[in-house]
Amino acid sequence: MLSVKIISVGTLKESYLREAVAEYSKRLSAYCKLSVVQLKETRLPDSPSEKEIDAALEDEAKAILSELSPRSYKIAMCVEGKQLSSEKLAEKLDTVSNTHSEVCFVIGSSHGLSDKVKSACDMRLSVSEMTFPHQLLRVMLLEGIYRAFNIISGTKYHK
Amino acid sequence: MLSVKIISVGTLKESYLREAVAEYSKRLSAYCKLSVVQLKETRLPDSPSEKEIDAALEDEAKAILSELSPRSYKIAMCVEGKQLSSEKLAEKLDTVSNTHSEVCFVIGSSHGLSDKVKSACDMRLSVSEMTFPHQLLRVMLLEGIYRAFNIISGTKYHK
Repeated sequence: MLSVKIISVGTLKESYLREAVAEYSKRLSAYCKLSVVQLKETRLPDSPSEKEIDAALEDEAKAILSELSPRSYKIAMCVEGKQLSSEKLAEKLDTVSNTHSEVCFVIGSSHGLSDKVKSACDMRLSVSEMTFPHQLLRVMLLEGIYRAFNIISGTKYHK
Repeated sequence: MLSVKIISVGTLKESYLREAVAEYSKRLSAYCKLSVVQLKETRLPDSPSEKEIDAALEDEAKAILSELSPRSYKIAMCVEGKQLSSEKLAEKLDTVSNTHSEVCFVIGSSHGLSDKVKSACDMRLSVSEMTFPHQLLRVMLLEGIYRAFNIISGTKYHK
C-alpha cells in the first residue's frame, strides 16, 4: 500500500476544514497509508516586509526539508506548477507507486514555499490559476487524491 | 452594490460544506447582495445510461434557465471553461459591475450542465483541470468571489 504524506504549515482554524480533512482521511484509509504533518507557521507582523516574509519562508523550509524523505516522490504545491486532470493525477500516482513507497505533497503557508523547498521536490503541481487559502487547498488536495485512487480502482466515484 | 447569484443543483449533504458556505456568505455580505439558489437534483439510478443522464440534465436545465435573468451576466462553471487568476476574476467582476446589476454563476450537478445552459451563459469559467465535486466547488467558488472582492477593495486578504 502506497504511503501518502501531506506536509502542511499551520493549523486549521475553521472547524469545517478540520471536519473535511477528517472525512477525507477516513475515506483515504481504504487506499493508502495517509499521514498529515502540520508544521508550525512562523508568526509575522501585520504588514510584513519582503525580508520578513523571506525569513519566515526560510524557517518553514528548514522544518519542511527535515520531513522530506529521500525515498519519497516529492510534489510541491504551487500556483505556477503544472496542472493535471484527475485522470492524469491518477496515472501519475499509479506510475509513482511502481518506483516509490511514498508520495509526499508539500503545501506552504499563506506566503507559499521557498525556492529551496521547490527545488528539493520532483514536481510542482498546481490545482488552479486562482489562489486558494492554503487551508482550503489541503481539503482540495485530499479530494483530488481520493478521486485519483478511485479512478485507479475503477469505482464509480469519478463519473 | 452588485448582486451575486449562485445557482446550484442539489443540497449540501456534508455539514462541513454547509458551514463553509454559511461562513463565506456572511463574509460576502460586506461586498455584494448574495443569493444562493439550490435547485432539485434529478434522481438517477445507480448506473444510469447516457440517455438517462441527458434526460436528467434537460430537467435540471429547465429549472436553471427559469432562474436566469436576461439582465444578469451569466457564468457557467465547467471544466472546459476558461481559467482566470484571482486578479483576473477581480477585474472581470469589476468590469461586469459597470454594465450589469447582477452576476450569476451556475454550477451543475455531478453530471455537469446541459449545452443549453452553457449556450445561455455569457462565459464559461473553470477553476481547475481537476474535477471537483460540485458541492465542494460551491465553497471554492464562494472563496474565489470573496477573494476577488478583497482584491477590488484593496484589503490585505489577498497577499
